[in-house]
Amino acid sequence: MDTKKESQKTPIRDLGKYKLTDRVSARFISSNEATLQGLGDDASVSCFREPLTVSAQKLSLEGVDFDLSYFPLKFIGYKTVIQAMGQVMAMNAVPLQLLVCAGVSQRFYVEDIDELFLGIEVAARIYGADVTAIDIQSSYTGLSLAVTAVGEGDAGLLTRRSGARDNDLLCLSGNVGAAYMGLKLLEREKRVFTGESGEDQLPDLKGYEYILERYLKPELPKQLLENLREDDLVPTSMCLLTNGLAHGVLSIAKASGTGAKLFVEKIPIARECFDLAQKDKDLSPLVAALNGGDDYEMLFSLPLKAYESLSKEYNIDIIGHICDASHGCMMITPDGREIKLESPGF
Amino acid sequence: MDTKKESQKTPIRDLGKYKLTDRVSARFISSNEATLQGLGDDASVSCFREPLTVSAQKLSLEGVDFDLSYFPLKFIGYKTVIQAMGQVMAMNAVPLQLLVCAGVSQRFYVEDIDELFLGIEVAARIYGADVTAIDIQSSYTGLSLAVTAVGEGDAGLLTRRSGARDNDLLCLSGNVGAAYMGLKLLEREKRVFTGESGEDQLPDLKGYEYILERYLKPELPKQLLENLREDDLVPTSMCLLTNGLAHGVLSIAKASGTGAKLFVEKIPIARECFDLAQKDKDLSPLVAALNGGDDYEMLFSLPLKAYESLSKEYNIDIIGHICDASHGCMMITPDGREIKLESPGF
Repeated sequence: MDTKKESQKTPIRDLGKYKLTDRVSARFISSNEATLQGLGDDASVSCFREPLTVSAQKLSLEGVDFDLSYFPLKFIGYKTVIQAMGQVMAMNAVPLQLLVCAGVSQRFYVEDIDELFLGIEVAARIYGADVTAIDIQSSYTGLSLAVTAVGEGDAGLLTRRSGARDNDLLCLSGNVGAAYMGLKLLEREKRVFTGESGEDQLPDLKGYEYILERYLKPELPKQLLENLREDDLVPTSMCLLTNGLAHGVLSIAKASGTGAKLFVEKIPIARECFDLAQKDKDLSPLVAALNGGDDYEMLFSLPLKAYESLSKEYNIDIIGHICDASHGCMMITPDGREIKLESPGF
Repeated sequence: MDTKKESQKTPIRDLGKYKLTDRVSARFISSNEATLQGLGDDASVSCFREPLTVSAQKLSLEGVDFDLSYFPLKFIGYKTVIQAMGQVMAMNAVPLQLLVCAGVSQRFYVEDIDELFLGIEVAARIYGADVTAIDIQSSYTGLSLAVTAVGEGDAGLLTRRSGARDNDLLCLSGNVGAAYMGLKLLEREKRVFTGESGEDQLPDLKGYEYILERYLKPELPKQLLENLREDDLVPTSMCLLTNGLAHGVLSIAKASGTGAKLFVEKIPIARECFDLAQKDKDLSPLVAALNGGDDYEMLFSLPLKAYESLSKEYNIDIIGHICDASHGCMMITPDGREIKLESPGF
């Protein structure tokens, strides 16, 4: 929520739905050549240079995707845009338009909606997408935010989950588990703050800025994907990590009809995760990496022959390789034991 | 809700999120040539024959867009798809893909979700769109349904709101106001049923099937739009009627920088609306038509020279014409008086 006192804020009913939409729309001016019709008509229209249209949607719901007691509204806007665009980027496509529907209840003020759309604006600008549709409506049940990302893709560069082949390298665009550790830290501090934990402690988030940011304001590996395309390195498969590394590996292996081997000591985990685990023995950085989720890193496979170019130029972690389906999906520990890879509900 | 007793239904937690998504996904097999990647990957991929991509999103929230006490779940699915596709069709484009996100709380059962997606399935099949993305998540706050429609459009046929010109005919694809009367009837019968009204009456919906269907299960004028395209009749402007006829006329006039004259006696209103108004003196069919909303008919403008072809072949109502902005937007009564056209919040 905006930090102003409520008495200084403007009730939404003072503006009404249409004026509120106009106010928020004023932030957004389409700048992509592809955007032919942006805000203000029935639908968004684009004319892409590449032949493929790639689209994905994310619905964020209060209490499930975010807890307003510690999730600033502008970060909710930012993160929901990241989640929608990330799915399009996981097909090796470029998101260029964003469609936004927000349901807001009466406890929000005009300034709160400004904050929400500020986050949307910043994410759209940083990643180069136009916001081409805004619909704000009432909600009886807290905040709901639906964002659709629409973009263009090249048929020759499309990366489905199903294209991984035996001996391909399994690669990660960045470290995993930090966002989940950030969420756990925020939940713990909320309990402390609201007195539920029984401990006598003040919220202490110093030193954990990195993992908090990974949860509250995740980024996408846009530059990496651009570099791969420029160097004609087309992943054989790719998926956005939303439900943990294990889920991603299992998804690719299942869709591709392969197995996979994942080397535990190769999984990149941020130092800050180990720092927090030292203080809170219930938290395991490895479990957070495998099953935590909310990473928004790309998991992808590359042919073995790409190894030479990769090792020099790229900030990529090679964490394992694809193998025949008969081997299953296994995690290899430093001492050589094989453990079956599992993800809740998969 | 499914009419089975709760004891015969399956709790969602028995299946879990992924199995529930698999179960629901099994209904949908992509059949459009344009659909290159449907369910099961990060994003939907299409390759349209026409150069334009046209997309729109609708978020439906329990308590605001529908009241579950009288709105069957399959109709919620059906109507939300209609609402998303209607916006794409209002640009004179053809919706071919649907992306669905559903947030469901614990009080729903697996069979309820089946009903919801049955409605989505039927609407998608009737209108020829593929469901290419399904995401089901938990919700703490009732049912939320976000649907995005993506389609293809021809640049030469695009109908923006802004293209209306002086002397163009104002046309309607069907009658208006019935959906709003249907909603009012349902609300009244709910009050009677729950004893709020103080009257001693049983719900009586006989004879009102038409207006109830207009509210619960609206249709889009797909055939009409196809006929217009085949006959090279391109509307100069078009908009989907969601917030009443007055709002539609004002939207087109504002976007086009024109005025408009609307002849009251030309507005098509179903007989059933007058029948209901006879019994409930608080309801006015004309007010329902002008400001009720939920019609999902197309309001569009055509050049005067289209009149000849129209009057013979088409089931269209010509309800007025576009005029210079200096005249404003006026409603002309049968006795020749001019009344300023208004829409709440516009």
